[in-house]
Amino acid sequence: MLYDTVWKGARLATMAGEGMGAVDHGVIAAKDGMIAYAGPAAEAPALHAKRIVDCKGRWITPGLIDCHTHLIHGGDRAAEFEMRLGGASYEEIARAGGGIVSTMRATRAASEDELVAAALPRLDALIAEGATTVEVKSGYGLDRDSEIRMLRAARRLGEERAVSIATTFLGAHALPPEFADDADGYIALLCDEVLPEVAALGLADAVDAFCESIGFTPAQTERMFAAAARHVLPVKLHAEQLSNLHGAALAARHGALSADHLEHLDEAGIAAMAASGTVATLLPGAYYFVRETKLPPVAGLRSAGVPIALATDCNPGTSPLTSLLLTMNMGATLFRLTVPECLAGVTRNAARALGLADRGTLEAGKRCDLAIWDVERPAQLVYRMGFNPLHARIWSGQ
Amino acid sequence: MLYDTVWKGARLATMAGEGMGAVDHGVIAAKDGMIAYAGPAAEAPALHAKRIVDCKGRWITPGLIDCHTHLIHGGDRAAEFEMRLGGASYEEIARAGGGIVSTMRATRAASEDELVAAALPRLDALIAEGATTVEVKSGYGLDRDSEIRMLRAARRLGEERAVSIATTFLGAHALPPEFADDADGYIALLCDEVLPEVAALGLADAVDAFCESIGFTPAQTERMFAAAARHVLPVKLHAEQLSNLHGAALAARHGALSADHLEHLDEAGIAAMAASGTVATLLPGAYYFVRETKLPPVAGLRSAGVPIALATDCNPGTSPLTSLLLTMNMGATLFRLTVPECLAGVTRNAARALGLADRGTLEAGKRCDLAIWDVERPAQLVYRMGFNPLHARIWSGQ
Ligand SMILES: [Zn+2]
Ligand SMILES: [Zn+2]
Repeated sequence: MLYDTVWKGARLATMAGEGMGAVDHGVIAAKDGMIAYAGPAAEAPALHAKRIVDCKGRWITPGLIDCHTHLIHGGDRAAEFEMRLGGASYEEIARAGGGIVSTMRATRAASEDELVAAALPRLDALIAEGATTVEVKSGYGLDRDSEIRMLRAARRLGEERAVSIATTFLGAHALPPEFADDADGYIALLCDEVLPEVAALGLADAVDAFCESIGFTPAQTERMFAAAARHVLPVKLHAEQLSNLHGAALAARHGALSADHLEHLDEAGIAAMAASGTVATLLPGAYYFVRETKLPPVAGLRSAGVPIALATDCNPGTSPLTSLLLTMNMGATLFRLTVPECLAGVTRNAARALGLADRGTLEAGKRCDLAIWDVERPAQLVYRMGFNPLHARIWSGQ
Repeated sequence: MLYDTVWKGARLATMAGEGMGAVDHGVIAAKDGMIAYAGPAAEAPALHAKRIVDCKGRWITPGLIDCHTHLIHGGDRAAEFEMRLGGASYEEIARAGGGIVSTMRATRAASEDELVAAALPRLDALIAEGATTVEVKSGYGLDRDSEIRMLRAARRLGEERAVSIATTFLGAHALPPEFADDADGYIALLCDEVLPEVAALGLADAVDAFCESIGFTPAQTERMFAAAARHVLPVKLHAEQLSNLHGAALAARHGALSADHLEHLDEAGIAAMAASGTVATLLPGAYYFVRETKLPPVAGLRSAGVPIALATDCNPGTSPLTSLLLTMNMGATLFRLTVPECLAGVTRNAARALGLADRGTLEAGKRCDLAIWDVERPAQLVYRMGFNPLHARIWSGQ
């Protein structure tokens, strides 16, 4: 067969199976944007190709996947951050227009073009480190038009850049002021009006909610999940971040792709996730930024065999982070994930957290999304801080 | 006067005086690599210039200064990091050749060219974020030739790139195996043979030591300081990182430029530093990376008026960090420094920690080292993580 491109002289972290699937003398052959062969050069078929790239011993990993972001939003919260460090009280910050409501207002005030323009530098920072798939949630519009505008803007990101965007409808992120005393009414609006339109427009690949004392109750979450099921959309959940409402187990019962945050996850939640194959998406950037001290139960997840993903959570309030390399370092440093776990967290398991079976490993039949690194060992991608050794990035074979 | 360059339409964080010295409608004029005017456009002299740059409202800060790095070293410790996360014991890591001795061996084995080549990507990462002055220490050679080779390599960095390099002799960083039972003998070698040669060659701008239970005693530190005084070299000290040996007070007695780390600094040490004008250089990257929980006494330093600097500590064992932006975020997030304190820490106070009175603020008479940022407010430089909004960097007026 004549391949489009062959990368030879590479070391591969295929991330297939368990561990890193390291191959010392590796080769990858691509055809029509897909991987036709990835593995030892010694076992490769005859590699005729239009283009042959000598990787000179560089490491190739799957293109990185950020499976939990709030990349689309208006404004930022730098002023609030500055005030808080300067000693301002929550009241003073609220009076100055801080908090999630300030992001909602800025998001509502922004046009689709403005939302795209604001998000592109954030997306570009992820891409510059080898990200090839990025999930983007709604959830700062909190009304029909603004939520739809956010999702349209998210989809637009995938047209503006050579990257795959997975969109998630997160209308149940916070209660908008219009429904201050009527969370059930807001959930009804989301389930009966907003989500049906979002689904009809094909704007969401999944449905998410914030199940928390300061968010929505398990019963309200369940109504969102039931609505998602009516539109044949998979679900995920912000769960057990600040307290234990048993959201992860609820998500698992609904076959959720992932439950995310999980600092307060208990044994029963772990068992439920293991049984349903729900991915645990850990967000060390948020843990770090809000100076959380309660660690997610990594050892329990590990021993139960729950797949662990890592994501930036890129959001203006609690994780203004646009680096998957730094996310891996935080996963290792703060959560004591191993190097293979960190890498699996932004490749194989991140793909699984998005329900994308066609990516996340270097295997024949998968998308040819690659990150090629100037490192001597994959551990350097996790170990270093504030350094980007990306040599080249391939999306869809190019 | 005809200036070389005028930057107009800028917002300035001059960092002059206390706070950020913010100027909303600012202008900077440079002549012969120095700032001739920096301040409000309304108060500026007639600005005739060979080149006029419209900053379009961007913020200008002084070029950033990293006042504590171990940028020159052979190898890295990523494999050790990986082993430790995988559960290896310290014994197993030592048997596998880990620890500071592994860095010493790799450094001794490296030629000057190899040391330079290994350090350049680290330096480039700092430069890419607006660093214009970087301190570099010796201390992994631990014998005469290797220490001198490290310092030569450090000086070479300043020839290879448009950046100012300040070198620090840190022979007293660790005890080399040759002197395993004779720390006093090693200090004597440093004071009587190595430092005199280093000084004669003009290779060091300052002298540093690691005063710690696992490093050198206060008495040995004092002998290094006395030797430094004989060569009219200023001193600094790694002090109070793991325990309180009263190193900061010792350093202050010797008029040290800075005492660095300081997690275990006590009130007496703070008072001594305040009296001598010694800068407290905090290294949040090391605090983060080794998962330290003992915080440096920021409130005490602040109320005593001790100038606080922030630096990367870039080193392979405890802080493989090459980002001053991330260092600022860690200073704010982990140490609760305010935004103006973080910015002063990598500009005004970092210059002071290096004894460089000619930089660190935007004022007439200072070097024209600038960082021009695509941000709406300086707080965004501290608030964001894994993002580089540098628009342009000016070193020595260019
Ligand atoms: Zn989130
Ligand atoms: Zn140091």
